[in-house]
Amino acid sequence: MTGRPAIRTQDISPFYVMELLHRAKQLEAQGRDVIHMEIGEPDFSTPPAIIEAAIQQLHTGAVKYTPAAGLPALREKIAAYYRQHYQVKVASQRIFVTPGASGAFLLGLGVSLNQGEEILMADPCYPCNSNFVKLFDGRVRAIPVDATTGYHLTDNLIKQSWSTTTRGVMIASPANPTGTVIDSEMLKLAIHSVDSLGGCFYSDEIYHGLVYGAKASTALEFSDDVFVINSFSKYFGMTGWRIGWLIVPDEFVDAAEKLAQNIFIATSTLSQYAAIAAFDDRTLVELERRRAEFAERRDFLFEELLRLGFDIPIKPQGAFYIYADCSRISNDSYQFARDFLEAEAVAVTPGIDFGSSQPRRFIRFAYTTSMARMATAMQRLEKFIHQ
Amino acid sequence: MTGRPAIRTQDISPFYVMELLHRAKQLEAQGRDVIHMEIGEPDFSTPPAIIEAAIQQLHTGAVKYTPAAGLPALREKIAAYYRQHYQVKVASQRIFVTPGASGAFLLGLGVSLNQGEEILMADPCYPCNSNFVKLFDGRVRAIPVDATTGYHLTDNLIKQSWSTTTRGVMIASPANPTGTVIDSEMLKLAIHSVDSLGGCFYSDEIYHGLVYGAKASTALEFSDDVFVINSFSKYFGMTGWRIGWLIVPDEFVDAAEKLAQNIFIATSTLSQYAAIAAFDDRTLVELERRRAEFAERRDFLFEELLRLGFDIPIKPQGAFYIYADCSRISNDSYQFARDFLEAEAVAVTPGIDFGSSQPRRFIRFAYTTSMARMATAMQRLEKFIHQ
Repeated sequence: MTGRPAIRTQDISPFYVMELLHRAKQLEAQGRDVIHMEIGEPDFSTPPAIIEAAIQQLHTGAVKYTPAAGLPALREKIAAYYRQHYQVKVASQRIFVTPGASGAFLLGLGVSLNQGEEILMADPCYPCNSNFVKLFDGRVRAIPVDATTGYHLTDNLIKQSWSTTTRGVMIASPANPTGTVIDSEMLKLAIHSVDSLGGCFYSDEIYHGLVYGAKASTALEFSDDVFVINSFSKYFGMTGWRIGWLIVPDEFVDAAEKLAQNIFIATSTLSQYAAIAAFDDRTLVELERRRAEFAERRDFLFEELLRLGFDIPIKPQGAFYIYADCSRISNDSYQFARDFLEAEAVAVTPGIDFGSSQPRRFIRFAYTTSMARMATAMQRLEKFIHQ
Repeated sequence: MTGRPAIRTQDISPFYVMELLHRAKQLEAQGRDVIHMEIGEPDFSTPPAIIEAAIQQLHTGAVKYTPAAGLPALREKIAAYYRQHYQVKVASQRIFVTPGASGAFLLGLGVSLNQGEEILMADPCYPCNSNFVKLFDGRVRAIPVDATTGYHLTDNLIKQSWSTTTRGVMIASPANPTGTVIDSEMLKLAIHSVDSLGGCFYSDEIYHGLVYGAKASTALEFSDDVFVINSFSKYFGMTGWRIGWLIVPDEFVDAAEKLAQNIFIATSTLSQYAAIAAFDDRTLVELERRRAEFAERRDFLFEELLRLGFDIPIKPQGAFYIYADCSRISNDSYQFARDFLEAEAVAVTPGIDFGSSQPRRFIRFAYTTSMARMATAMQRLEKFIHQ
């Protein structure tokens, strides 16, 4: 007998949306036309130049291990992107290419968080972010936030919540599930407050690039003493390639190098060669076209949800999510999601997947599907509400 | 100020061979012809059918997320491989495709090991294996082994070393650095002893397939209540693709599924489609041809090292390493490795990278380079010894 799973696994909550996904698949098997608005994955394919770069590398036959921190050429490209896009200088030695943002969270927390230490996060937030903390037997202090702070932590909330066991603060912007972008001044104050408290600041920037009518600042604009997590998945359209990056403060470079060698060996070689082409002008033009389409979808969905009686106190400015308050329609968003799927074959994510701060009031709609499909989904939603 | 790296990172030792690698690169930059016998990566390219499968998938343009546990078709292929190759039935639900064996260690230990718990391992062993335990703030009890037990833990050693904090035992076979294959009966007794003690058995089988004149049994032949870690890197020639797998006992399936969703999202999609072709007859024929070449290299290197005065108490039967006792030539293998590199431009790995059990007596030679290059390396070694 091997006994029971480790204690940390009891602490990690399952995704409730998985149950809905499972049911959606059953309905599809029965021939129902399910519209997926629960999926955190862009419907666009990987841009052609990236695909071509991978094919080219495959033709060389060389798919060997790379250095643990990533191909030097890719690390340089990322550094150049920070210079051009944010006017920020980052030494490429501080940049670690990782197996997705997942790998960046693993490495960033593995290198800095001790067991029993606490990380402050906003509630609602994306559940994986807290679960990485639990993986290292750390604790998450989830601080309820609402529209008054743009669903983000503020320097005041940070100072009020800080305790002797607090190790640091994680802020995600654009945020999942709310799609809100933190104001640059607020971000700066938050970083400075964490700095003065002697903690680590973790900036989850995986939705950077997908911002509409606003500016998303990187934490690196305000301090070099931050951990930045980013990814090629969302803006660059490389979900299945599992490649992201982590930027660490200087004092963490050696430890991160050592840890990366041990826990990854390296990131997928092919994904790294492909990602170099993610910064080509040709790719960036295509990505900007997609961004414009996301903006259009957001506008459409936002107006439709308001029209149908949802409350959305802030118009989201990033990612591809709208976190809509359904309390004028239902007092239980989870039940609403299940019934809506059953009746009208549209899948959405219940608030319960994102924390304990009034989750039954909220539903997350992802606009990762075409305008035409969303229009049909909204017709179905209207019918469902008025049935 | 963000303070210092997490305590666990101080516990994780660097690879000493990295210093040698760094020096080797400097020598190469100076125009020296360095022969690499320190590298744990086959010199063969990824087999053509695997490359072609990846190119085919790329042409579809679909490189999206897969289920967290892996593509169902790939999990089925792995299950079929166990049936055909080992005559063992494994339900595909117990098989988790992971980002390399690294991901399999992460998932297997993450799902089963609590902080402060102890894992028994042989010393010498591959350092990453212990470092995964340290990542989760577990402890490694490294038990000195020698040629009398084939450098493996025995049921007696396990029983003698078991304490109240012991969570389980990890055995790697074929082993790195010794290349020794555990006898089937010994493996069975070890598994049964761990079972009777109520612990977890972790079987590192990443060098399976690379066995010469011996049979490597999978732990699954003797129990379903084991964790098996395997990889497409070594035998299948897919190092840079970062894909492996983990098999868990039934009671750990749900927790592993939940943890995989959170810590990986999924393994690289392209690597998974490519790995399906790893089981094609055409690929397996090519891999067997390579295995025969490795066997020939082992025989050559083994005889040469003996001739030059090294002691190798057991002829290694697997992987691509020979762990040679240099005590008749030098009393410090680390110094020997540095001097040999400097004088003759051949890189090898010092025993100090593999534990504390007489590491200064041993050097690991990897036969991941051609016969011709190895012959030159042996000429240089002879010159170095007799200078």
